[in-house]
Amino acid sequence: MTELKNKTYGIVGLGIMGGSIAKAIRENVLDQPETGGRIFACDISKPSLDMAQSSGIIDKGFLPENADEMLGRCSIVFICLYPHATVDFIKSHKNAFSKGTLVTDISGVKTVIVEGLASLHCPGVDFIIGHPMAGGEKEGYVNSNGAYFTGRNYIIMPRPENKPENIEMMKNLITEMGFTRIVETDYRNHDHKIAFTSQLCHVIASALVKSAEDEHITEFGGGSYEDLTRIAMINAPLWTELFLADKKELLGHIENFEKQINTIKEYIQSDDSEDLNRYLEEVRLKRMKMSRIDTVIKD
Amino acid sequence: MTELKNKTYGIVGLGIMGGSIAKAIRENVLDQPETGGRIFACDISKPSLDMAQSSGIIDKGFLPENADEMLGRCSIVFICLYPHATVDFIKSHKNAFSKGTLVTDISGVKTVIVEGLASLHCPGVDFIIGHPMAGGEKEGYVNSNGAYFTGRNYIIMPRPENKPENIEMMKNLITEMGFTRIVETDYRNHDHKIAFTSQLCHVIASALVKSAEDEHITEFGGGSYEDLTRIAMINAPLWTELFLADKKELLGHIENFEKQINTIKEYIQSDDSEDLNRYLEEVRLKRMKMSRIDTVIKD
Repeated sequence: MTELKNKTYGIVGLGIMGGSIAKAIRENVLDQPETGGRIFACDISKPSLDMAQSSGIIDKGFLPENADEMLGRCSIVFICLYPHATVDFIKSHKNAFSKGTLVTDISGVKTVIVEGLASLHCPGVDFIIGHPMAGGEKEGYVNSNGAYFTGRNYIIMPRPENKPENIEMMKNLITEMGFTRIVETDYRNHDHKIAFTSQLCHVIASALVKSAEDEHITEFGGGSYEDLTRIAMINAPLWTELFLADKKELLGHIENFEKQINTIKEYIQSDDSEDLNRYLEEVRLKRMKMSRIDTVIKD
Repeated sequence: MTELKNKTYGIVGLGIMGGSIAKAIRENVLDQPETGGRIFACDISKPSLDMAQSSGIIDKGFLPENADEMLGRCSIVFICLYPHATVDFIKSHKNAFSKGTLVTDISGVKTVIVEGLASLHCPGVDFIIGHPMAGGEKEGYVNSNGAYFTGRNYIIMPRPENKPENIEMMKNLITEMGFTRIVETDYRNHDHKIAFTSQLCHVIASALVKSAEDEHITEFGGGSYEDLTRIAMINAPLWTELFLADKKELLGHIENFEKQINTIKEYIQSDDSEDLNRYLEEVRLKRMKMSRIDTVIKD
């Protein structure tokens, strides 16, 4: 991957995701100082930039007022902001990107990105939409980790206007960063699937915490409740935005989930042990097949 | 804990729980061979008994037809069977326990145990109901682990007829086995709380797996879905029994959970970002307080 080793990378938004991307590139791609590759980052937090620079993760930090200066020097830019902020940033800095730049994002919803940028005229810039599938309850650059992506999925949504050589370079970079599986799809299917695997899970975890009589409930916990609610230590403004941006898909998934809860409830109400047992047996087999996929891919 | 070191322990049911209890006692209590303490186990699986004996975890295995012989030689007996099987076993072997034996169980529902044994006449045997709060998707002796209980909760439900010195001995043993927190309550409160932390979580995880379009959904997973559904690799007959045995409490919790899901759904439907954000913020704070409890206890 000689090509990747002498690129100049720009990270816009040095939080847990941007920070982890910077670290993964530094540790896995630019691990030899003489390659000539560099990492720049732009963030509103000077302390985060200073921390990243002093530990050698980034070569230079830029405050938002100097974003244009940074963008002009980069050949690959990761926009690691909230969905609407991603669109706003690209629109307001569209003239600052250097010609030929590969720009990508990490947003958890894509319809707002694709529709938001539909009218954008930004010749010479190749915008590839992508979604590194890693998350958790932690936030901020201090919690970023270069090994965060090991064994994870990265979804990319190539479009006809993307240059094939840039898609190829992006896939090579993703693999070098530690991701195990690259899934290619379109943005509508992405939003449909992610509303299920990610947003619905956050809705459920939140409702499950709110349902608890009090915060002492974990005295009676054996691990299940703790595992199901860990993601409820939620970044409220981000997830409010994600829930509303993918509203239609999410509401559909919530309703399907409610139907399943209702089926189980009816079996319990009617003491129908036979159907309940069959249902749980099917669930077990289905979930075990999911595990096998994970295992195969991780091997 | 000299007293605990020369007891003869009996484990009835050498699955993941019985096996882990045997290993925790062997590794943490009877770690010096010369103490005189012994562990016996009774199980329907001769291979499990042989495996446990040949690796030095148990001193001798007994098939069910020889259970009485084992029980007569033990001073502390753990019944590690399904709830109804626990009641049946104690009833049919009530004359085999040696006088003065401390008998305890691990059942996830207690009303069926307490009511099932209410008419039992078994003089000289002290039956202390308890619940080691550890679980997961694994089963069987092969998956048992002596470190399984580290950092976990153990709920005990002392009753007026229990001897104080036996309650004290039981607590010492629980602590020696590696549990971090001992919670004392009554069986009704146990069943109310556990229907929430354990059974409701298994209902949710199962419904969430059943809701998935297919088993390839984890290609779009970033960890949340995987974490929320791991316990759906469920032991169907056991959980069917648990759901039905604690039916009233569980249905109440499901309904409260559904109300919370509905609240979130309404915020999303009406694009009410302010209330949604406030709700998620409250959830975050509540869940973080729960974490602090765990952390304090684990320290």
